[in-house]
Amino acid sequence: MQENVTPHSFNVTKKERNVMNNHRSFLIWFTGLSGSGKSTIANAVETALFEKGIHTYTLDGDNVRKGLNNNLTFSPEDRTENIRRIAEVARLMADAGLVVLAAFVSPYRKDRGNIRQIVGKENFVEVFINTPLEECERRDVKGLYAKARAGEIENFTGISAPYEKPIAANIEIDTTKVTVSEAVAIIIKHIDSTLVL
Amino acid sequence: MQENVTPHSFNVTKKERNVMNNHRSFLIWFTGLSGSGKSTIANAVETALFEKGIHTYTLDGDNVRKGLNNNLTFSPEDRTENIRRIAEVARLMADAGLVVLAAFVSPYRKDRGNIRQIVGKENFVEVFINTPLEECERRDVKGLYAKARAGEIENFTGISAPYEKPIAANIEIDTTKVTVSEAVAIIIKHIDSTLVL
Repeated sequence: MQENVTPHSFNVTKKERNVMNNHRSFLIWFTGLSGSGKSTIANAVETALFEKGIHTYTLDGDNVRKGLNNNLTFSPEDRTENIRRIAEVARLMADAGLVVLAAFVSPYRKDRGNIRQIVGKENFVEVFINTPLEECERRDVKGLYAKARAGEIENFTGISAPYEKPIAANIEIDTTKVTVSEAVAIIIKHIDSTLVL
Repeated sequence: MQENVTPHSFNVTKKERNVMNNHRSFLIWFTGLSGSGKSTIANAVETALFEKGIHTYTLDGDNVRKGLNNNLTFSPEDRTENIRRIAEVARLMADAGLVVLAAFVSPYRKDRGNIRQIVGKENFVEVFINTPLEECERRDVKGLYAKARAGEIENFTGISAPYEKPIAANIEIDTTKVTVSEAVAIIIKHIDSTLVL
């Protein structure tokens, strides 16, 4: 093999993957309070994209906190590391040709700025699910707000830890004002041209 | 949105992604000494698969150590965490429909067992690039063996840190006996039926 060990330009490029898939690849990041509807909307957007033949993947607490980030807590330092790792995975997946949807509270502005830097601003669409705290707490789908109010959960965003709102999100959605279907339509319309090669 | 917040079965499944791509997705893990030819062969296999219309991605030191794992050293503990994170990323990528190729020294048997457990044994193909140490050291493409011998690099596999050979790799290749093209052919032949839905 010796003569073949010298480096060849063997690597498949992102551009070649995008041509094969017939669409560009990038990251759509959903930020907002627990219970704001981030995952519901991300999953609905993914389904709509998938039905259009787009190659997608959704990262959320379910598949990340139980696996890659199962050694992290909810302390500020670990939240930062949590978001950093997710951004790095999203960068690799976008490089692999996937439209990546990521739904995480991601409460710190600095961390979200870090994501943008890691994936590159041309590959980053920030969606702020701006459902009011009162509504998220009223829904309390997982019963987490009740526990946070009772002091059973520490560092709970909106209750005992801060949420820093995005200053210039690409898209902002208040789920008390639009349905899931309407939210999907708004997001798809926004990224439609970004998908084109 | 309230009426839509109740959980829908919105998630796109691995099976649906595999049907869209028209092939199964899994992990091909290349283990072996530094300079054994892991990355060269992995990249050549990826190119061959890509040309057949397979959706692929290669994880290696270049794209992982500089990003996701840039906060890890080469200590035994950090090597274990390095491999764990890569396995978790590979699991997500295989779930996303990609045939993932990963080329890492991964010297510990226990760590490689952990990969198998994380991705599931039905999604794990282990390729042992069994190039003899003397040949790897003779090539010394990156000059690392010279530095390790001079004591300038600690924990260098094969010199100052152990390499535990796989006991039952799916494929074993000695690059002093086969060319890159031959190695690619052996691997493609082995996984050809695994790719079929």
